[in-house]
Amino acid sequence: MAKVQIKGAIPPMITPFKENGDVDYESHSRNMELWNESDLGGYLVLGSNSEAIYLTEEEKIEMVKLTVQKAKKGRIILAGTGMESTRETISLTNKAADAGADAALILTPFYYGGNMNDEALINFFSEVADNVTIPVLIYNVTKFTHINISANAVATLSRHPNIVGMKDSSGNIPQLVAFKSVITEDFNLIVGTASAWYPALTLGVKAGILALTNIAPDGCAQVQKAYEKGDHKEAREIYERLFPVNTAITATYGVAGLKYAADLLGYKGGFVRSPLLPVREKEKVQIKEILQKARLL
Amino acid sequence: MAKVQIKGAIPPMITPFKENGDVDYESHSRNMELWNESDLGGYLVLGSNSEAIYLTEEEKIEMVKLTVQKAKKGRIILAGTGMESTRETISLTNKAADAGADAALILTPFYYGGNMNDEALINFFSEVADNVTIPVLIYNVTKFTHINISANAVATLSRHPNIVGMKDSSGNIPQLVAFKSVITEDFNLIVGTASAWYPALTLGVKAGILALTNIAPDGCAQVQKAYEKGDHKEAREIYERLFPVNTAITATYGVAGLKYAADLLGYKGGFVRSPLLPVREKEKVQIKEILQKARLL
Amino acid sequence: MAKVQIKGAIPPMITPFKENGDVDYESHSRNMELWNESDLGGYLVLGSNSEAIYLTEEEKIEMVKLTVQKAKKGRIILAGTGMESTRETISLTNKAADAGADAALILTPFYYGGNMNDEALINFFSEVADNVTIPVLIYNVTKFTHINISANAVATLSRHPNIVGMKDSSGNIPQLVAFKSVITEDFNLIVGTASAWYPALTLGVKAGILALTNIAPDGCAQVQKAYEKGDHKEAREIYERLFPVNTAITATYGVAGLKYAADLLGYKGGFVRSPLLPVREKEKVQIKEILQKARLL
Amino acid sequence: MAKVQIKGAIPPMITPFKENGDVDYESHSRNMELWNESDLGGYLVLGSNSEAIYLTEEEKIEMVKLTVQKAKKGRIILAGTGMESTRETISLTNKAADAGADAALILTPFYYGGNMNDEALINFFSEVADNVTIPVLIYNVTKFTHINISANAVATLSRHPNIVGMKDSSGNIPQLVAFKSVITEDFNLIVGTASAWYPALTLGVKAGILALTNIAPDGCAQVQKAYEKGDHKEAREIYERLFPVNTAITATYGVAGLKYAADLLGYKGGFVRSPLLPVREKEKVQIKEILQKARLL
Repeated sequence: MAKVQIKGAIPPMITPFKENGDVDYESHSRNMELWNESDLGGYLVLGSNSEAIYLTEEEKIEMVKLTVQKAKKGRIILAGTGMESTRETISLTNKAADAGADAALILTPFYYGGNMNDEALINFFSEVADNVTIPVLIYNVTKFTHINISANAVATLSRHPNIVGMKDSSGNIPQLVAFKSVITEDFNLIVGTASAWYPALTLGVKAGILALTNIAPDGCAQVQKAYEKGDHKEAREIYERLFPVNTAITATYGVAGLKYAADLLGYKGGFVRSPLLPVREKEKVQIKEILQKARLL
Repeated sequence: MAKVQIKGAIPPMITPFKENGDVDYESHSRNMELWNESDLGGYLVLGSNSEAIYLTEEEKIEMVKLTVQKAKKGRIILAGTGMESTRETISLTNKAADAGADAALILTPFYYGGNMNDEALINFFSEVADNVTIPVLIYNVTKFTHINISANAVATLSRHPNIVGMKDSSGNIPQLVAFKSVITEDFNLIVGTASAWYPALTLGVKAGILALTNIAPDGCAQVQKAYEKGDHKEAREIYERLFPVNTAITATYGVAGLKYAADLLGYKGGFVRSPLLPVREKEKVQIKEILQKARLL
Repeated sequence: MAKVQIKGAIPPMITPFKENGDVDYESHSRNMELWNESDLGGYLVLGSNSEAIYLTEEEKIEMVKLTVQKAKKGRIILAGTGMESTRETISLTNKAADAGADAALILTPFYYGGNMNDEALINFFSEVADNVTIPVLIYNVTKFTHINISANAVATLSRHPNIVGMKDSSGNIPQLVAFKSVITEDFNLIVGTASAWYPALTLGVKAGILALTNIAPDGCAQVQKAYEKGDHKEAREIYERLFPVNTAITATYGVAGLKYAADLLGYKGGFVRSPLLPVREKEKVQIKEILQKARLL
Repeated sequence: MAKVQIKGAIPPMITPFKENGDVDYESHSRNMELWNESDLGGYLVLGSNSEAIYLTEEEKIEMVKLTVQKAKKGRIILAGTGMESTRETISLTNKAADAGADAALILTPFYYGGNMNDEALINFFSEVADNVTIPVLIYNVTKFTHINISANAVATLSRHPNIVGMKDSSGNIPQLVAFKSVITEDFNLIVGTASAWYPALTLGVKAGILALTNIAPDGCAQVQKAYEKGDHKEAREIYERLFPVNTAITATYGVAGLKYAADLLGYKGGFVRSPLLPVREKEKVQIKEILQKARLL
């Protein structure tokens, strides 16, 4: 049976919070209405940019339900359901599936990082994939986990019928090529940072789950469309224009910066949840300048 | 009001699991009966060696209750109640307090490590300490969190009336001295690895939360007793004899190794929870040899 | 005055040694005769793959002279002349210039890495460039130096009239794009690892100094030729076929592996200089297999 | 034949430079006259704090000769003669021996760090020790080399008749204990940072090569004297008083800060050699304050 195919720019959706720290579901709905108007490949709810690590299980399931309800028909809904333990990961994934998620993006467990060798990761993802009701994608995000899954482990896991892809957020293109050289044809290799979007496309990658898509959905989509039409020059120009926004947000200001940029661009960024801190006044000025320079504002 | 004083060797207690992955509460009770017979300074439930990150909230509270019930009277019960979000940390800490914990050992949040600067950590611990019903200790364990709290942050936090100490598991003695030079007199600076136990004592540290205490409670206690009697030679000899056991378990075999050693030494180690893997046959042989060489077996 | 333009695949040439550890100049001459037959963009003598750090000043100058003498006319000769101190770097660079080198590839100083901030690196490269008789290129190779020059420093340095380019060996494509966005039009941004060769071309990079070029000069050149003809598919295919060779040699076996592969492919790899160790028998088998799989052998 | 025994506080002597960057031999002589008046265990010339990596071979030998000539009789002279290649290390060590050095402190080679495994380091130090005319000490300084020699390699090397000790500058006390547990009785384990001086003494270490000894020779010596008299409290007090000076200089300001402090305290610090930068005015104020707080100024 062929694996589901994932294609296009996909936002790892921010989770807006109210000033008191509660989830602002209404603002999330509003954001989705806006994103629905762009030509996106689907949605990721409960990713790193969603502050999912700060959400309770109840909030997570609520966010999945709302996302499923609001999404434009036909768009795939990925839910970040990785927990540290295998049993909790299975449990949460099945709850997200019941809530309507189409597939699960599952973080490499990382607390006992020194023990998360190939064997442990292969066991973990296999056991999860064997016991959940929706397809599984591996989520490799070294920046947050300090784990970097090996090409050997990916080679094995890509052959599991219920493991259908991987999001690699390293931004490391040679590593992406190494992954590409060991996976099966129908395994969805997804790039996880806008910094690597254009070069990834030139190497045959078909989908990107990019923080930048939250605030520049059309730009992210156009890079791919132009590339696929054969207009490499235009694709690269948009990429190079948007690149500094991504670098600033991802590396310098984090989720709080992304949310402030969202506020400026007509979305509902909202508050971050503590212990994250909001951006300072000085940083706000810098974010504005970056957005203006990239002609987003 | 003076802060509570913590003194002695304290085991960060392992959590025994059954083969099916359920918590084996009975085995925990049995272990506590054995530890009660040694001259220990208290107990830590829900630490890193407890696989706390793999426990559900219900299991955590059950473990706290059982620990409180089984502990020899007069021994302090510390509970590891750190979560990633401030609000969940407060909630869990107060539940642990209601379950009988005397104080909370709270991990530095770490998922968004790049944003966990001094300001964020000071805010986090202050807000938690302001809103919980038991005293708070900071838990700095770079090995797992990739966060290393600064002496500046510790200086500020040590002055909060409800932040009463810190466990530093870095094993970095110069760093311990740096912390010591900035804290208040009644702030409990606790060393978090047996590798640093003897040198920490020579620098005035009074308590150690040491994985090794799970399997060598008497040895860990004796290092301190000998030191305090002025018998530095004996203290150092015990320390140097037990040191290789700690290095092997902490650095090489992790929690699974510690549990296997516990099984060998009459405790109930039990299974680890997935995705952790049990020790292999070859490693079992090595652990036996290490325990024999240290005259524990 | 426009800066010299560097283009094409350039081998960071291995330095063959005799069994007694002396430089085997004759073998170097033989290698150059072979490389002269391929369509290369020039030569780098005294790079990291040349074990330059193990050569005396006399040996270095001798290698430059021999390279100049043997090189096919019209090919640019780059010499790696970075030393830790500014004064020795200037001195060696001018000696290499006198020996015929066309430009100098100069390593970021790195011993006191904690002090090599933007200001120090800008001062260093500016002072060197002001005092040498040939153009200067920056050599950024984090793998060996644990220094990673910032885009800010590169922005400044690219405006110096005698600093004409940079070799970035990080393989980090997003970083390459960041550098590209701050440099002047005529500044030669050169990619330093074959792992990044094809994606770098798609981003407008014109030259690569690639260890792989030592043993697969035609393949490295063809990737670029095919790309420039618009045959992206062929370019990518050659790149993906050769990629595993590069990964194996660079990451796994190092210079000793590269030299053994050179021996197998008709070049004179020769011995490494101590403390480097030759490849073991088992590794030889693996290298052979990798070369066969890439259809080089 | 018993190995030479090394004991006491030893300064890794700074190398004063003139404003034009030339070595200021006269100032070095003046410094030595001052250090001769303190109760030191010997001298290290050409260490990391000597900017040895910036000296030519001629300057190095001249520094050794001058040190031998100026040193108080009976004090051991250690010379830092490590080079990247085995053959140059042997050559320089024998020249330093001819110039009067008593023993050589030899850096782990580090440029090809990924290849400097146990086997390579054991081969390197053994081959050097077999071919030089003075005893050899291993110099492990991860901060600069990014290499950390293993206890296994040290165990083997400590059994070589001409390898008489090791300076470990990691400041990592548990690692020091691990080294101590594998070496032979007569192998000189020397601590390489003042941050670890007191705890190292409590573990049986007899010598320290400490940057701080350049500017606080008496304090460094007194810590050991007090400890050995059994006055642990006094030893610890001096250590804790001087500790912040060491931290500031080593971690924050580097060699330039050490030299400025030397100038303030009556020694001849002199200029650093480029690419090192002198301390800024603001840093000068901070250094003064630190010295005043430690009652050195």
